Amino acid sequence: MIAINDNTELAVGLTIPAEIGMAEEDISTPALIIDLDAFEKNIKLMGDFIREKGIRHRAHAKTHKSADIALYQIAHGGACGICCQKVSEAEALVAAGIKDVLVSNQVVAPRQINHLAAMARQARVIVCVDDLKNVDDLSAAAVKHGVQIECLVEIDCGSGRCGVEWGEPVCQLARKIAAADGLSFSGLQAYHGAAQHVHDFHLRQAKITLAVKQVADTVEMLKDEGLECIIVGGAGTGTYYFEGTSTVYNEIQCGSYIFMDADYQRVRDASGDFISEFENSLFVYTSIMSHTKADRAICDAGLKVLSVDSGLPVIFGRNDLEFIKCADEHGVITDPNGVLKLNDKLKLIPGHCDPTCNLFDWYVGVRNGKVECLWPVTARGLSL
Amino acid sequence: MIAINDNTELAVGLTIPAEIGMAEEDISTPALIIDLDAFEKNIKLMGDFIREKGIRHRAHAKTHKSADIALYQIAHGGACGICCQKVSEAEALVAAGIKDVLVSNQVVAPRQINHLAAMARQARVIVCVDDLKNVDDLSAAAVKHGVQIECLVEIDCGSGRCGVEWGEPVCQLARKIAAADGLSFSGLQAYHGAAQHVHDFHLRQAKITLAVKQVADTVEMLKDEGLECIIVGGAGTGTYYFEGTSTVYNEIQCGSYIFMDADYQRVRDASGDFISEFENSLFVYTSIMSHTKADRAICDAGLKVLSVDSGLPVIFGRNDLEFIKCADEHGVITDPNGVLKLNDKLKLIPGHCDPTCNLFDWYVGVRNGKVECLWPVTARGLSL
Repeated sequence: MIAINDNTELAVGLTIPAEIGMAEEDISTPALIIDLDAFEKNIKLMGDFIREKGIRHRAHAKTHKSADIALYQIAHGGACGICCQKVSEAEALVAAGIKDVLVSNQVVAPRQINHLAAMARQARVIVCVDDLKNVDDLSAAAVKHGVQIECLVEIDCGSGRCGVEWGEPVCQLARKIAAADGLSFSGLQAYHGAAQHVHDFHLRQAKITLAVKQVADTVEMLKDEGLECIIVGGAGTGTYYFEGTSTVYNEIQCGSYIFMDADYQRVRDASGDFISEFENSLFVYTSIMSHTKADRAICDAGLKVLSVDSGLPVIFGRNDLEFIKCADEHGVITDPNGVLKLNDKLKLIPGHCDPTCNLFDWYVGVRNGKVECLWPVTARGLSL
Repeated sequence: MIAINDNTELAVGLTIPAEIGMAEEDISTPALIIDLDAFEKNIKLMGDFIREKGIRHRAHAKTHKSADIALYQIAHGGACGICCQKVSEAEALVAAGIKDVLVSNQVVAPRQINHLAAMARQARVIVCVDDLKNVDDLSAAAVKHGVQIECLVEIDCGSGRCGVEWGEPVCQLARKIAAADGLSFSGLQAYHGAAQHVHDFHLRQAKITLAVKQVADTVEMLKDEGLECIIVGGAGTGTYYFEGTSTVYNEIQCGSYIFMDADYQRVRDASGDFISEFENSLFVYTSIMSHTKADRAICDAGLKVLSVDSGLPVIFGRNDLEFIKCADEHGVITDPNGVLKLNDKLKLIPGHCDPTCNLFDWYVGVRNGKVECLWPVTARGLSL
């Protein structure tokens, strides 16, 4: 990143919120900032966990959509590769140097299948399948591009979304994949999305215990047919401990653990505490831009920089203030003691990290009160 | 826009959802599409309204963030200029040829004030003010850049957000602006954001009736001090009829009327009907990507392409289907009759148009089943 002086910045417009070396309080807002110490600690913790359990971690890039972060997770967190949710997202990250990518989703549109197959010339490409006809289409594209695409059969573990039922429906798809030109059967995708944010520990554990049993039985059925599961993958930040210690799953797919968010703060461990060994490292940095009422202030962060699908943001380290309303470009903050002033800065913990990151073009990495790096949100908005 | 063939498209990646001339059903999904007939009709209707009432329309570009659409509103809808909510948004649209822009918001950060003043070399620049110290800062920047910045004093009409109380607090700010070097007092900003989506007609009307009275009284007080309001501005799609026929407001600022959305469908007119003379012209086009359950299908549009702050999307023209859940990259659709198939396309009316448009890089304009244009979302993500 080049430094920006007063003239060049006017020429390029207000598009980058900070420059390297700048004091944190000088960052233009609203900006998406990362506490690099907390972020690195989170990545190290996950690396320690997988080493200890002897499993792999395929870090989910849907959370951050950043090539810099994906490469960091591989280099410093022991990640074996990444997951993406969309072909366009995977393409952008493969173009930036990622060599091993699972599109942890169905790819059924002809144009996207064509791109998926073309990508397999540059990287190991794995994709999820839950439809017999889709196997034919993926095979034809792999043959056309002269590549091999690895396929995981997706099991619906209880989320009621994509995937087939465990057992015979999985075996039927696996047999067809194994027999198809250009494809190889590599195992199972068994991600329980709906369990990640179940706040109660025992209910969350019960959901994963059931999924593990179904997955284990399916792995055995496949083995009886001579079909080996190289990958048994799934798990997110809310449940990874269960899958990661199951001895059935060998690849976990956590994403949010690097950042955390306000909703993950509501997910509890066995003793009823905040689960997390992971710290909040992601914040929407905001400024007070209007303060005409004694007991409330207006900040410059609204719906265009905060996804509120999982609730409003929480103001980091400030129990005296509450973010109570989110309009398109404004946030309303109660300030009962009238302590806020114009241009005061606050750190907001977003309600939901993934869709919030997708709203920004830049991450601003901060350490010891200084801007240390600017990382583009490489695959921002890539949803095809 | 250049046409894209199979090879060039692989080189550039999956970033553009369509090409001009393509059949609508061949658009890659998820995509943001505009029904151009409905869109043009909406813009014509607003043009007819302001001509009939003898008022101006300063179209709100926060809705669309598109230079193409802003220029169309000026050329074909009689708009006198645009509103923006952020300096960065205004900069991008001024760079694309807009000559008259109101930043309908407070600009208090030093860097943003500097950019606002610089922009006044290229366009008529108007900004809202609700703080006395801010007048000094704006004046200093205008003097530094050798420009004139027009200021509107913002009145809080009842939304509890930005703006001062009507009457003397307004006059105090207006006097200071009128006396400040590089600034001119141009009038009042009196937008009642919270009234726009009040579903009941009479309650909505009552809120604006009160605002109009306060604004009228303030205009008189200012006139008594020799301060003329060249602009008395405000109003959105939900209330413009009231302000537009008030004889007090002379500039309305509608944005959503070009597109409409699912929440505006809940806003009723005096007879209890859907208010709108305006038609839904904006859709998130989506495909079915998984269908392993008899009575539900999964589409490829989730939270990264739909803002759900004002509710889930509604499926256009399909009373047999319901969008019931929105995950990051998936939508869950009930399909009780089991009629949907993989790759079937649906049009979703987003719950809230403004933050949904901000998620996309391209508008795909469609007429008579063909793609007619591709417009970039010029100021997408520009929130500084």
